[in-house]
Amino acid sequence: MNSDQCGNDKGLSRRQMLIAGGAMVAGATMTHLGGLIRPALAKGGGSEKWPWPYEKLDPAITAELAYQEWYRVFCGAAVINSVVSQLREKVGEPYTSFPADAFVFLEGGMVGWGMTCGSNAGAAIVANLIIGPRIAGNPQGHQISEEIFEWYSDASMPVYAPAAPKVATEIVRTTSESPLCHISVGKWMKASGFPIGSAERKDRCARVAASVAFRLVELLNGWKDGKYEVVSSHSPVKEYGITAQMNCMECHTGDVPTPPRS
Amino acid sequence: MNSDQCGNDKGLSRRQMLIAGGAMVAGATMTHLGGLIRPALAKGGGSEKWPWPYEKLDPAITAELAYQEWYRVFCGAAVINSVVSQLREKVGEPYTSFPADAFVFLEGGMVGWGMTCGSNAGAAIVANLIIGPRIAGNPQGHQISEEIFEWYSDASMPVYAPAAPKVATEIVRTTSESPLCHISVGKWMKASGFPIGSAERKDRCARVAASVAFRLVELLNGWKDGKYEVVSSHSPVKEYGITAQMNCMECHTGDVPTPPRS
Repeated sequence: MNSDQCGNDKGLSRRQMLIAGGAMVAGATMTHLGGLIRPALAKGGGSEKWPWPYEKLDPAITAELAYQEWYRVFCGAAVINSVVSQLREKVGEPYTSFPADAFVFLEGGMVGWGMTCGSNAGAAIVANLIIGPRIAGNPQGHQISEEIFEWYSDASMPVYAPAAPKVATEIVRTTSESPLCHISVGKWMKASGFPIGSAERKDRCARVAASVAFRLVELLNGWKDGKYEVVSSHSPVKEYGITAQMNCMECHTGDVPTPPRS
Repeated sequence: MNSDQCGNDKGLSRRQMLIAGGAMVAGATMTHLGGLIRPALAKGGGSEKWPWPYEKLDPAITAELAYQEWYRVFCGAAVINSVVSQLREKVGEPYTSFPADAFVFLEGGMVGWGMTCGSNAGAAIVANLIIGPRIAGNPQGHQISEEIFEWYSDASMPVYAPAAPKVATEIVRTTSESPLCHISVGKWMKASGFPIGSAERKDRCARVAASVAFRLVELLNGWKDGKYEVVSSHSPVKEYGITAQMNCMECHTGDVPTPPRS
C-alpha cells in the first residue's frame, strides 16, 4: 500500500510494519504444513434446507422498519432485521435463531471501508437465506442479489420517503452508478454539500436502507408467487473476463486493462 | 450507468429501461406512505447473546478445510464453513443452526461483481458472529474485521500452501493493496498470465480463502485468550471524511475530491 497516496505517511508506516511482521510469521507457519488429517465436515441443521418458509410481506411496512432500524443497527443489519423480525413473528424458526444483529459490521461498506453498500449486502443475505444458495438448486436468490445491485446503481436514491422523517431538510436524490458505499455516499455528499457526520447524511442512508428493503420485498413476494423473472443482464466474468462492475471508466479512466483470456 | 463505458450498449440499454420502469413504479408507491403502524420488532433467540461459546481451533486444520471447501462453496462460504463446521462438532448450538452455505453468493466479490473479496467478507461474518456486533458492547469483532482487511491488502497472497495442492503449477504471489476481489484477482491475473476460468486462478483463490481462514483463527484464538490487541490504524471517516479504503490514488489518479466537512 502506497502510504504517500492519502497523506498519512506516519500512521500507515507504523501499521504496515506491524502487519508485515504478522504476515511473515504466518507465512513461515503456513508454508510448512503436511500430513494433515481432514476432519469430516459437520453439516448444519434444518437451516440449510431451502427454501425457508416465507410469507409475503408488505413492502411499505418493511421499508418503515428498515428506516427505524437504521438508527439502531445501521444499513446492513437494518435491511436484514426489517425482513427477519417480521418472519420471526409470522413463521418462527429458522428466522428466530438467525443472528441478524451480528451484521452491524456491514455499516459503511463493511466497518467503514466504503466497499459494498451495507443495504445491498444485507438484501443479498436475506435473498440467499430464504431462497438458498445457487448450489442448492435454485439460482433465484443469486439472481435477486444481482438485480438489487443493478437497481440500486441506477436508482435516484433515496427512493423511499419515510412517513415521519427524523430530519426535516429536503434530502437530495443522486444516482450512484455503483453498488459501493464510497461511491454512493460520495456522490450524494458532493451533490448535497452535507458531510459524512451530518444528520442529513445519516437520514439519507436510513432512507436508502428503507428503499432497498422495499425493493427486496417486492422481489421476494414475486418469487413466492412464482412470478420472478430475471432482469439482470450483467455477466462480468463472461463479458469482461474478470469479476467486475460495469462502470469500468469510473476508476480506470482512459486505460482499461485486457485480462488474460484462455 | 454509462453504457458506453464497457462496450455493451445494447444489453445495458434494455436493462436500464426495465430497471428505470421498476424504479418509477416503486418510487410512486414509496413516496405516498402515511399512517403506518410500526409493529414491535421480534427479537432473536439465544443466537443474539454474545460472545458465542468458542473453543480454540488449529489454524492449519482450519486453512486446509477452507481450501477443500472452496471447491464446494467458493471463497466466502468456505471461510465461514471452515470455522463453523468445527465448532458445530466441538460446541454445537448456535453454530449448528447457522446457515453457512447460504453465503455462497459472496463468491467473486458478491455474485461476481468484484466487490469485497468473499474471503474477507466471510472472515468478518465469523468474527462478528462469535464476538458479536460492536453495539452489543465489545468492539473486537469489528476490530478483527478491520485487521483482516488490512492484513489481506498488504499480504503476499496466497500465503497458504496446501498440503496436497489440486494444481501442480507454481502459484505466483501478489499483493492486492486492497480488500476488493476485482483488484486482488486482477493484479494476480496480470502477474501470472492465467485467465479467470483457469484451474490456476481457482486454486489461487482457494489458497487465499485458506490464508484468510488461518489468520482469522489466529486472531480468534488470541481473543479467546484475552490477548487480542488492536493493530488496525485505518479510520477512514475520521481521516478522510468519507467511508473509504486507503489506496485513494488507485482509482482517483491525480484528483482526489475533498468531501464536505462540518
